[in-house]
Amino acid sequence: MDSHIFPVDLDKASRLINHGPTVLVSARHAGVDNVMTAAWVCALDFEPPKLTVVLDKSSKTREMIEKSGAFVIQVPTVAQLQLVNTVGTLTLATEPDKLKKSGVELFGIKGHDLPFVAGCSAWLACKLIPEPHNQLIYDLFIGEVVGAWADVRVFSDGRWHFEDADSSLRSLHHVAGGNFYAIGEPLTAQD
Amino acid sequence: MDSHIFPVDLDKASRLINHGPTVLVSARHAGVDNVMTAAWVCALDFEPPKLTVVLDKSSKTREMIEKSGAFVIQVPTVAQLQLVNTVGTLTLATEPDKLKKSGVELFGIKGHDLPFVAGCSAWLACKLIPEPHNQLIYDLFIGEVVGAWADVRVFSDGRWHFEDADSSLRSLHHVAGGNFYAIGEPLTAQD
Repeated sequence: MDSHIFPVDLDKASRLINHGPTVLVSARHAGVDNVMTAAWVCALDFEPPKLTVVLDKSSKTREMIEKSGAFVIQVPTVAQLQLVNTVGTLTLATEPDKLKKSGVELFGIKGHDLPFVAGCSAWLACKLIPEPHNQLIYDLFIGEVVGAWADVRVFSDGRWHFEDADSSLRSLHHVAGGNFYAIGEPLTAQD
Repeated sequence: MDSHIFPVDLDKASRLINHGPTVLVSARHAGVDNVMTAAWVCALDFEPPKLTVVLDKSSKTREMIEKSGAFVIQVPTVAQLQLVNTVGTLTLATEPDKLKKSGVELFGIKGHDLPFVAGCSAWLACKLIPEPHNQLIYDLFIGEVVGAWADVRVFSDGRWHFEDADSSLRSLHHVAGGNFYAIGEPLTAQD
């Protein structure tokens, strides 16, 4: 595990996705790992932390999550722009070497039998909360966050520090096709 | 209605929130209008367009949406930083003049009996899809988008143009407390 990666308190986990980044969703089932891109992910609760993610019925990762009951949501960086776009375009169903082609490197975190994508800025290990009606009708999945980690070069003391970190560590915010925005400058409202 | 505001095709409505902005949620019931801030909003479907929004049980706006079955999700701008923070802090339950204190100006759009917040960059008129289990257990509300509009100075031809518009029109992305990030620079992946 990269020496920059440190655990994040679970009561601060929602902050990792509060600013609306596009994420990578990864899962493991029956000895196979997969990763997909998702813009439609959202925090749902603080304590215990939960989140929602929309997973299309055509997605192989969805099928694996339904079977394994677990997944990782990770926040990719500007440096991973091409990887994020490729992982969001190829499907494991027709491209068995999708991860290799996309340049995805995986690593493990002790206590979690899940594939974590290297080079991201934050990771949330999730346990699926089965809600068959939401999954079937809306493609909407709910996860409880059971572990959270971040790259301390850009997230520490419970908050992002994009403005002080290298700009390659900024989060990506998907628009459409291959088009994204990076997160920008900090603003603070007066009390 | 401001001369910069034009309708957005419903099949492009999800793009208004795809990049994860913090939004304002507004509702009208029994002659009362209210507005709240929400970071936990997310696209859910393209056709018909749907979205999810998390509304805490303590929120007066939630109660109004449950009764009226309709609400507006709008994307505020950097110029509205202070308004967004104030609207997210005060509650109508104890502050009857919350909107006045926050500097909120409302306008109407023909065919929709809903309060729209002036000065935002995009508006999505939504019809509540009642899902009592989600609402009760998760504070999770699903809306179908029945009308969408944007300020053409920053969203046109079905996409955002933050990089070409005045920086005061950029979207806000909430972190915690009074802290936000503005959306940043565009990035395009290669095919």
